[in-house]
Amino acid sequence: MIVRTRLESSHLAGNLLGDPSERDLFVYLPRGYEESDRRYPTAYLLHAYGQTAEQVVTPDTDGQRWSPPIEDVLDPVFGRMGVPPMIVVIPDGNSRYGCGQWVDSPVTGNFEQYVVNDVVPFVDANHRTIPDSRSRGLFGFSSGGFGSWNLASRNPDVFAAMAVLSADTFLDMTHKFMPYKYLDSIWPEAPDGPVEGNFWSEIVYDYAACYSPNPDRPPHYVDLPVAHPSGELIQDVWDRWLSFDPVVNVHDRLDNLRKLSGILLDAGSNDDYSLYWGHRLLSHHLNAAGIAHEHRENPGNHGGRANERFQVALQWLSRVLEGD
Amino acid sequence: MIVRTRLESSHLAGNLLGDPSERDLFVYLPRGYEESDRRYPTAYLLHAYGQTAEQVVTPDTDGQRWSPPIEDVLDPVFGRMGVPPMIVVIPDGNSRYGCGQWVDSPVTGNFEQYVVNDVVPFVDANHRTIPDSRSRGLFGFSSGGFGSWNLASRNPDVFAAMAVLSADTFLDMTHKFMPYKYLDSIWPEAPDGPVEGNFWSEIVYDYAACYSPNPDRPPHYVDLPVAHPSGELIQDVWDRWLSFDPVVNVHDRLDNLRKLSGILLDAGSNDDYSLYWGHRLLSHHLNAAGIAHEHRENPGNHGGRANERFQVALQWLSRVLEGD
Amino acid sequence: MIVRTRLESSHLAGNLLGDPSERDLFVYLPRGYEESDRRYPTAYLLHAYGQTAEQVVTPDTDGQRWSPPIEDVLDPVFGRMGVPPMIVVIPDGNSRYGCGQWVDSPVTGNFEQYVVNDVVPFVDANHRTIPDSRSRGLFGFSSGGFGSWNLASRNPDVFAAMAVLSADTFLDMTHKFMPYKYLDSIWPEAPDGPVEGNFWSEIVYDYAACYSPNPDRPPHYVDLPVAHPSGELIQDVWDRWLSFDPVVNVHDRLDNLRKLSGILLDAGSNDDYSLYWGHRLLSHHLNAAGIAHEHRENPGNHGGRANERFQVALQWLSRVLEGD
Amino acid sequence: MIVRTRLESSHLAGNLLGDPSERDLFVYLPRGYEESDRRYPTAYLLHAYGQTAEQVVTPDTDGQRWSPPIEDVLDPVFGRMGVPPMIVVIPDGNSRYGCGQWVDSPVTGNFEQYVVNDVVPFVDANHRTIPDSRSRGLFGFSSGGFGSWNLASRNPDVFAAMAVLSADTFLDMTHKFMPYKYLDSIWPEAPDGPVEGNFWSEIVYDYAACYSPNPDRPPHYVDLPVAHPSGELIQDVWDRWLSFDPVVNVHDRLDNLRKLSGILLDAGSNDDYSLYWGHRLLSHHLNAAGIAHEHRENPGNHGGRANERFQVALQWLSRVLEGD
Repeated sequence: MIVRTRLESSHLAGNLLGDPSERDLFVYLPRGYEESDRRYPTAYLLHAYGQTAEQVVTPDTDGQRWSPPIEDVLDPVFGRMGVPPMIVVIPDGNSRYGCGQWVDSPVTGNFEQYVVNDVVPFVDANHRTIPDSRSRGLFGFSSGGFGSWNLASRNPDVFAAMAVLSADTFLDMTHKFMPYKYLDSIWPEAPDGPVEGNFWSEIVYDYAACYSPNPDRPPHYVDLPVAHPSGELIQDVWDRWLSFDPVVNVHDRLDNLRKLSGILLDAGSNDDYSLYWGHRLLSHHLNAAGIAHEHRENPGNHGGRANERFQVALQWLSRVLEGD
Repeated sequence: MIVRTRLESSHLAGNLLGDPSERDLFVYLPRGYEESDRRYPTAYLLHAYGQTAEQVVTPDTDGQRWSPPIEDVLDPVFGRMGVPPMIVVIPDGNSRYGCGQWVDSPVTGNFEQYVVNDVVPFVDANHRTIPDSRSRGLFGFSSGGFGSWNLASRNPDVFAAMAVLSADTFLDMTHKFMPYKYLDSIWPEAPDGPVEGNFWSEIVYDYAACYSPNPDRPPHYVDLPVAHPSGELIQDVWDRWLSFDPVVNVHDRLDNLRKLSGILLDAGSNDDYSLYWGHRLLSHHLNAAGIAHEHRENPGNHGGRANERFQVALQWLSRVLEGD
Repeated sequence: MIVRTRLESSHLAGNLLGDPSERDLFVYLPRGYEESDRRYPTAYLLHAYGQTAEQVVTPDTDGQRWSPPIEDVLDPVFGRMGVPPMIVVIPDGNSRYGCGQWVDSPVTGNFEQYVVNDVVPFVDANHRTIPDSRSRGLFGFSSGGFGSWNLASRNPDVFAAMAVLSADTFLDMTHKFMPYKYLDSIWPEAPDGPVEGNFWSEIVYDYAACYSPNPDRPPHYVDLPVAHPSGELIQDVWDRWLSFDPVVNVHDRLDNLRKLSGILLDAGSNDDYSLYWGHRLLSHHLNAAGIAHEHRENPGNHGGRANERFQVALQWLSRVLEGD
Repeated sequence: MIVRTRLESSHLAGNLLGDPSERDLFVYLPRGYEESDRRYPTAYLLHAYGQTAEQVVTPDTDGQRWSPPIEDVLDPVFGRMGVPPMIVVIPDGNSRYGCGQWVDSPVTGNFEQYVVNDVVPFVDANHRTIPDSRSRGLFGFSSGGFGSWNLASRNPDVFAAMAVLSADTFLDMTHKFMPYKYLDSIWPEAPDGPVEGNFWSEIVYDYAACYSPNPDRPPHYVDLPVAHPSGELIQDVWDRWLSFDPVVNVHDRLDNLRKLSGILLDAGSNDDYSLYWGHRLLSHHLNAAGIAHEHRENPGNHGGRANERFQVALQWLSRVLEGD
């Protein structure tokens, strides 16, 4: 059963994009929840770029029926797969540019604070969770994997484990081409905000709104990391992007990471953006610091099988989080 | 719950490929089956080229977990989707070349007779089906959609409905290039049987073993539809292939088709093999004959979403088959 | 030196597309022509789909300079390559749909008659050719190769040799998909003439205007070989296309072909349209009829190296045509 | 006419790859050279990665005839294009790994010194050049364009002009992925020298042999810029690569560049490696320093039309070099 509520957040209020500060919040209660009074570990599912929580939970189920509702993904985990029951929380992190990337930004909204300070207390107050960090984990694919890293590595007192699935990592190799793709797509015009239907423009403005916001530069409120028309990399803007990159900020967060009870890195060795290189490098840095973690590669690409990865991630989370 | 049995078939015995005549047979019993004594409509799921029934039912569920077990596909149909319960039967149609195409062949085995004369009676005898053609339907994707057409259009007294999903159709446009791809792949060598790991060679020998078998031509027992090295199309062999093509044999089976209570044609408009053209033409011929059917197109390609199509097909089958 | 003239043709007059009946005609005179009074063999270069004679002879030579003027291609043939000098004639076969395909059509114009009855007599009358079929040959790439086949195989008394380069052949395998590509490109709209900038629509209307013209069907004056929206192949229209296919009409022209002093078939084994299969089959049929010819394959694709093939073709033509 | 000689070079002797120190040297003498006693400006053509001077000058001219001999490219420049005659020199810069990149390296050989100190004096001593830097220029495509930049920007007293065509530039964006492609291609094996037929391995070892040679590390004598298996970028090695990058070293060579009489930057806006971004950035830096130059973009990609670019480059060089 999934309970849908709406949550108003002061941390999202006032975002410069004018996106809503009241958001959907979905809470999956495992079979047996109603009949018992036990408490459950909780897994937070952070969705990917371009999605909303609603689309994850209740995709259109008309004749097309491409994506199953998330319950069809979760039920077998706690059913046929035999994983002990957990509560799964699905917050909304959408932005009009695609995704708030689960970080704090004056432009898109403070999504980190929103999850940590609004969502978690609300869930603990309203559902029979085990209200302790040792029983609270994160998982997500792509931007959701990136968000899992960001939230857990900065808030180990809130989340004890993260399953990082095909996450945005090693931006210097995997994302630096994107602003150039954007310029190519509009050349010889000058950049002037995201162009509807132009993927590269939307994702670049999305990242910039999250990683290099500039409240003093209306109407788009961002600094882009490349100059136009020279194409020069603007190093100080790019460095702001890099500060969010797991392979960069891992070095400053070792103490936090050591506190976690579980880190899973899982990426496809055919990932379209070569994100496996980021995962490998992250694993290397964790090993160098003596931080235990699990590093897996699967034969997949970036596009497919996120639902199946969620199932695997929950199976793993259940082992590293404390039950009652 | 899925019941696995093994079924020995005289209709498969003696196939010239030496493939086993004893095969897996899986029967999915819907929730509540055990607690009731009611009888259920039955849907036969015919798998695609390159698969086995076992792979459909119990794919590897290790860390990779790409494909869910078929129960995870079927349970939500009769659960969250609210479809009245049915029995779903999953016979095995594998051949060492890829697939028996659910037709009779002295080389690969008589799969049509196997399903009609062995599987159906066995299922009716051992499970609480409604043992009547009006309550018996077929569905399948790709070669499984082709097989559904073949079985229902030839045996309307056994099956009353078929959901034909992205089926091999209009071979003259969608499959004629394949033998040439095969020749290209081995050129300048002469054809000499399927080459392991060479997709084009395997699928061409597979089709030939099903559509143009030649028991007098060891060791491969097939006639290929193109001459080597001239590349001339061997029209009489190609005509044997075409005789299995739904857009060709539809004209001779109108009386049978009229007896059916339901025909669903469903294809992706981005199908990699342009199979939507075959479906459109088939729909055109059915319309010309005044035969009611449902013709749908979805935005998918050939590779993906077969499980989701199965769910849609079952929802549809449930409406056209008679319940108890 | 290239002499440019304009030639008015009664055979092109009245074409239903309203294309001009006066055309460019370019004649390349080899080095030494002016200083001698000898007579030369003549090679007719038939250009490809989408070109004009002018573009072949004098492509833009601005800063971009992609294509060299044809003199830069021909001079080395009769210079560094040491080929005895020939006159090279470059008629114009353009149509507003792309190309008249060097055949007779009431819609695009009678290009076969134009070349045979207008161009050849004009050239013989105005330049020191050897005015004899044994000293007259044809060459061309793609549609120009197709045109070379059409003209020589029907007029062996006019042309004694043809170099058929990557020609449209085996249409049943290499071209039948094109009308479907066109329908796909406009779907769900109905066909309504060529769409500017839509390659598939332009080439299909072009072929139809040449192969299946219908003067009684304004405003486009063509029969298309596929029905809309069923996608059914209209066999009698398709058969009209096939009647122009070298691998089909070869059988009716064996007597003509026997009269030729040279046939060169040359195609790339990576041709994007698999035209090598047409060339192989054509070679097979010629062999079966005991007609000597040269069949070559090179590693090229369809797009590139036409100029280099022209050089090779002229070298070969020089050997099979009679000099003075 | 092209004169072929062999030149032994002390600057190539002792290279650690054991490549020959005696090399081909081709000198193209324009029409009329023999009949006059005038002196000519000289253009040095630097070939690309994977080539030899011999392949440029006399490619195979058998039935395949893909590439014309360089004379067929040069003759029209000084003929139909009307460019005043020049001497064109074609040195050999091949290495067993692909190309010496026209830089000095103890591993591949000192190709800069070879051209400057061996080739130029030899040509001036043996042919009627105008033996002055103002009459001496460079041109090349891809690695040859890179080499033109390297030689002219470091030796303005020797060369007064350079035509930089689709040159390796902005390595941080256009080349950094290559070592990762190499690792991907051999994964999970460890790097162990160039693998025959593996393009990525060969080009990475080639660049490393030129940009980050390490005579103390037999048997391959290179430092690779990425660590194995972590994939970490080894910044100090990568910085050595970058020191050869035109967009990096331009800043240190402004005084030299100011001495030149001509700089042409020409790249295709569809370049497969996005080298147009490097050219744009280089143009930006030159503009910022007030250094006049010509910056052109054409619609081409990386693969094609190098010969046509050579023709355009020579036309341009002729304008900026001093004649007699």
